[in-house]
Amino acid sequence: MVHSENQESKSLKSEILGIIAPSFPAFLDELHCKYKNLGDGAIADYIPELSKVNPDLFSICVATVDGEVYQVGDFNRLFTIQSMSKVFAYGLALEDHGRDYVLTRVGVEPTGDAFNAIILDEQSKRPYNPMVNAGAIATTSLIKGKGATERLNRMLDMYRRYVGKDVYVDMSVFTSERSTGHRNRAMAHLMLNFGMIDGHIEEALDLYFQQCAVMVSCRDLAVMAAALANKGVNPITGEQAVDSRYVKDILSVMYTCGMYNFAGEWAYKIGIPAKSGVSGGIIAVVPGKMGIAVFSPLLDSRGNSVRGVKVCEELSQKFGLHMF
Amino acid sequence: MVHSENQESKSLKSEILGIIAPSFPAFLDELHCKYKNLGDGAIADYIPELSKVNPDLFSICVATVDGEVYQVGDFNRLFTIQSMSKVFAYGLALEDHGRDYVLTRVGVEPTGDAFNAIILDEQSKRPYNPMVNAGAIATTSLIKGKGATERLNRMLDMYRRYVGKDVYVDMSVFTSERSTGHRNRAMAHLMLNFGMIDGHIEEALDLYFQQCAVMVSCRDLAVMAAALANKGVNPITGEQAVDSRYVKDILSVMYTCGMYNFAGEWAYKIGIPAKSGVSGGIIAVVPGKMGIAVFSPLLDSRGNSVRGVKVCEELSQKFGLHMF
Amino acid sequence: MVHSENQESKSLKSEILGIIAPSFPAFLDELHCKYKNLGDGAIADYIPELSKVNPDLFSICVATVDGEVYQVGDFNRLFTIQSMSKVFAYGLALEDHGRDYVLTRVGVEPTGDAFNAIILDEQSKRPYNPMVNAGAIATTSLIKGKGATERLNRMLDMYRRYVGKDVYVDMSVFTSERSTGHRNRAMAHLMLNFGMIDGHIEEALDLYFQQCAVMVSCRDLAVMAAALANKGVNPITGEQAVDSRYVKDILSVMYTCGMYNFAGEWAYKIGIPAKSGVSGGIIAVVPGKMGIAVFSPLLDSRGNSVRGVKVCEELSQKFGLHMF
Amino acid sequence: MVHSENQESKSLKSEILGIIAPSFPAFLDELHCKYKNLGDGAIADYIPELSKVNPDLFSICVATVDGEVYQVGDFNRLFTIQSMSKVFAYGLALEDHGRDYVLTRVGVEPTGDAFNAIILDEQSKRPYNPMVNAGAIATTSLIKGKGATERLNRMLDMYRRYVGKDVYVDMSVFTSERSTGHRNRAMAHLMLNFGMIDGHIEEALDLYFQQCAVMVSCRDLAVMAAALANKGVNPITGEQAVDSRYVKDILSVMYTCGMYNFAGEWAYKIGIPAKSGVSGGIIAVVPGKMGIAVFSPLLDSRGNSVRGVKVCEELSQKFGLHMF
Repeated sequence: MVHSENQESKSLKSEILGIIAPSFPAFLDELHCKYKNLGDGAIADYIPELSKVNPDLFSICVATVDGEVYQVGDFNRLFTIQSMSKVFAYGLALEDHGRDYVLTRVGVEPTGDAFNAIILDEQSKRPYNPMVNAGAIATTSLIKGKGATERLNRMLDMYRRYVGKDVYVDMSVFTSERSTGHRNRAMAHLMLNFGMIDGHIEEALDLYFQQCAVMVSCRDLAVMAAALANKGVNPITGEQAVDSRYVKDILSVMYTCGMYNFAGEWAYKIGIPAKSGVSGGIIAVVPGKMGIAVFSPLLDSRGNSVRGVKVCEELSQKFGLHMF
Repeated sequence: MVHSENQESKSLKSEILGIIAPSFPAFLDELHCKYKNLGDGAIADYIPELSKVNPDLFSICVATVDGEVYQVGDFNRLFTIQSMSKVFAYGLALEDHGRDYVLTRVGVEPTGDAFNAIILDEQSKRPYNPMVNAGAIATTSLIKGKGATERLNRMLDMYRRYVGKDVYVDMSVFTSERSTGHRNRAMAHLMLNFGMIDGHIEEALDLYFQQCAVMVSCRDLAVMAAALANKGVNPITGEQAVDSRYVKDILSVMYTCGMYNFAGEWAYKIGIPAKSGVSGGIIAVVPGKMGIAVFSPLLDSRGNSVRGVKVCEELSQKFGLHMF
Repeated sequence: MVHSENQESKSLKSEILGIIAPSFPAFLDELHCKYKNLGDGAIADYIPELSKVNPDLFSICVATVDGEVYQVGDFNRLFTIQSMSKVFAYGLALEDHGRDYVLTRVGVEPTGDAFNAIILDEQSKRPYNPMVNAGAIATTSLIKGKGATERLNRMLDMYRRYVGKDVYVDMSVFTSERSTGHRNRAMAHLMLNFGMIDGHIEEALDLYFQQCAVMVSCRDLAVMAAALANKGVNPITGEQAVDSRYVKDILSVMYTCGMYNFAGEWAYKIGIPAKSGVSGGIIAVVPGKMGIAVFSPLLDSRGNSVRGVKVCEELSQKFGLHMF
Repeated sequence: MVHSENQESKSLKSEILGIIAPSFPAFLDELHCKYKNLGDGAIADYIPELSKVNPDLFSICVATVDGEVYQVGDFNRLFTIQSMSKVFAYGLALEDHGRDYVLTRVGVEPTGDAFNAIILDEQSKRPYNPMVNAGAIATTSLIKGKGATERLNRMLDMYRRYVGKDVYVDMSVFTSERSTGHRNRAMAHLMLNFGMIDGHIEEALDLYFQQCAVMVSCRDLAVMAAALANKGVNPITGEQAVDSRYVKDILSVMYTCGMYNFAGEWAYKIGIPAKSGVSGGIIAVVPGKMGIAVFSPLLDSRGNSVRGVKVCEELSQKFGLHMF
């Protein structure tokens, strides 16, 4: 059953959602029922820690820009944020260096290749965009701080502003990813070769693996997405999570590059800026309206949550959330 | 000086443009002045016919969804529509076969590769999207009709609905492209090999070269773009140019794939669905508001009009047209 | 049982073969017995005509440079020469234009890619070598003659010199390949685009499909290979099949590029210039000694005859035929 | 002037060289004169240490399998062996693991790509061959020994057997390559990702950088090449430098893959197994006859010594050294 945490403000919600509010929780319940037995897909197994998850876990959360949260299923269950972290780290890098400088290090072009392709733009030698692994590592390497600890703390503090409370790193997942991340390490060295990232490779990779291993709930993700829908302001705490000047940039790359090599089809069919992670989460941002998060660990061949894609597609169609 | 053809409806325009209308014509004039002496870029020279154009030609036109047209510079000058045709042919293919079938033949994924890359999606063997040449040829091959003439006539009739009057094919450009289009011919045969297009290669290529050689003015393009901004209805004639169900699909692929391998940066910086052509035109669609067209034949290294990109960037910033 | 056509010249053979001659026929018999029941591999099925062949067919023939022919199995059975034709057409192109000019049109670099890859050397725009399809089509387009018939006749006359009698084109195979050769057609147009082949694409492709559809027996192939082992002179008729100046060039590209993307492993393990065809033939040339031909239509995943590779490997080891 | 160290054995030399011996030294002198003022090409500058070399240095040495050495120019000048080391390390890996196992880790297929391409065979995930950097790193990682020092000592001992005296590592070049070898480090991590190399990346890379930084003279290289021409036996000391069973394998990969992406053209025009290094050396092996070495640091765009290629081409033509 959908839980709404702020039941009093129905009239406002109605307006924000552009729908008759009472129908909304019921529809989330309906979607949860409809897809909870869909067993398609497979759990990520590239690190043992991820493969231990219960494949039945499933939750849908929606947080509106006026602070309402609708949630159904295992919405407080923690899991690692994985590639969804790329979105937030990109914002921090933009805050630290500004748009122009970041663009010299990481492009914003979508690519038809897989997220882990060892490939840089032939002319510029930049990674194509901050949503592929190479680009995300380059992004993370831009985060400022004196030493590894300060950089980690700035990252964790950023997460805190988005979520509204402290977050923690899953040490087992971090260790596991660090010890098996040879492909990411290969990319980092290749970018070092082209001067796209500086010096301390291992520190940058550590911070990247740490940012991916941060634990969040589906509810947390919905609030994080809602902050992006709300000009960077956490709609519950009112805290500015990211400078409003960069929200447009973040949403743009989510829109064109966020869903791996399904990005184009997502933009075509669902049409909302979004990002997925191999832990099974998807976040989607409807600017000025709401943040959506779905969690279900069963992934399709491109690494996107099977149920997550279905739920977002239905929400987009039902409430006309497509950008066009 | 900007010419407005429908000066009486100022109050409506204001609302549509989300601006104080009087400033709008002045700003177009200002942009035209600012960039008319910018000589960067080069004229397309891959066929002799295109290289004959006067590089100084320059016009900016905006058509609103309520039928207002603002225009400055050489707005009635005819030139061939080239790759901007891909947008409209895609709509016709969708009308002829529906979304699901068209998706089996042409993908909707952006690609980091050049527009003329001889490349198909490795798994599906589809061209990546309808905005690259391979995808556009596949799209055109889907247009229905008994024989070449009927197919051409259906294409021309579609153009007529968008423009509001009959359009014509530049025979010299058609002949020139046909006799030098070996790379496009190579792609067509490769797609035939994978069963992505059917039988009559030469007929499909002829229709593709014809669709690219249709002559339009900058003003025509603004009205065509305005029809896409207006749910498929030509805002001047009121005629339905394309089924409103497919406008979202057209805009989606324009947004993610429309500007060659500059598409991502365009989405990032300018954030409006758009398409360019090597003749020097750019069309951009602000849904529910207006169609924008710029014509200036000097192209950058990616094949986009140098002045066109600048003008669209300034319009987007000045009037907050970015989708995010 | 091995048939020797010239049993009297045993002493000479011994010397040429570098072995005690009597053991040679016995060893061919032994190999034939050993592998005739090996059912691994699959028949080429990309055109219906090829898929009709009896998979049990199997023959081994060796022709020495002094005109001795050893043969076992279905050695008179005719089949189409397919890609083995590339070797001989390359010789004719060299005779027609000389080494330097041919090198400007077709490279001599091996490539790790498949034989039918749509790929040209990025800098030179040449096909990598005359043994991949693109390079073979470019080679064939170089063959001189007034009109299609004269070019075909020059090609057939070249075959006649190598074989020692007239050869014929299998019209069904030709028609079948022509009507399904879209990939080859794609390559031809791409090369036309880069100026690597001239004008009449369809004529060049027709001649290419004709050269591939020439019918030969395993015995014929052994004699053809022996001519290459014998400085270009057919060891039975004494006719010069190809200018001796170009034999070195032909053998060089066979050695580095002849066995598709198995070429390197072939050079490593077997170490004899060779060429295979999808009809199931393999020819191998031991300079100054003999030509070897094997025919067995069951192919491995790279398109080489399974039994053919085994037989050549054993012959190379047994008689020390490896170049190094 | 050419120095011959063993002037008494003229009759034997004549036979080995297949020429009238007296003309040989004169021809080397002639070649040295002819090319010593050829200033084409550029010095390798990817590490500062290499760029300091005097571009005028030039020597040609030939060592016959009966221990005669002909030398002209700066034949005792030491320089780092660089990529020519790949040949000898491959032999040691074969001795340590046998042909079959080594083949599971490193292929023997030539590739049209550059020597430093970040590319593995798509199916097998092996590097294409031991002559590209990725393959050489994988090869070196196979060298046995308890700990880094023992492995280095085994490598140095192998060099000693080939050269006939102790060799040393240039510590500045080693340090310089190690601190800038990000691309090689990227490849190593990528291979680790695919299980193509084991564990200690940094140790394997150190050994690889050490093997490349070994100092040799042009004379040393000629003797090393002569050992390969002489079934693995150093023709001066009589010591077995490499197991004779693997000489064929070494020569095979030199022949098809030794000269970077000029390998095919080298095989075509010069036709001798060879390997070049960015320090400006080329070694070439004429089996059963001689080893050839040329040293001149001016490189062409593919990384091969300009004068070295010319000298080898003339020697091949003059004395008919082409394999075919």
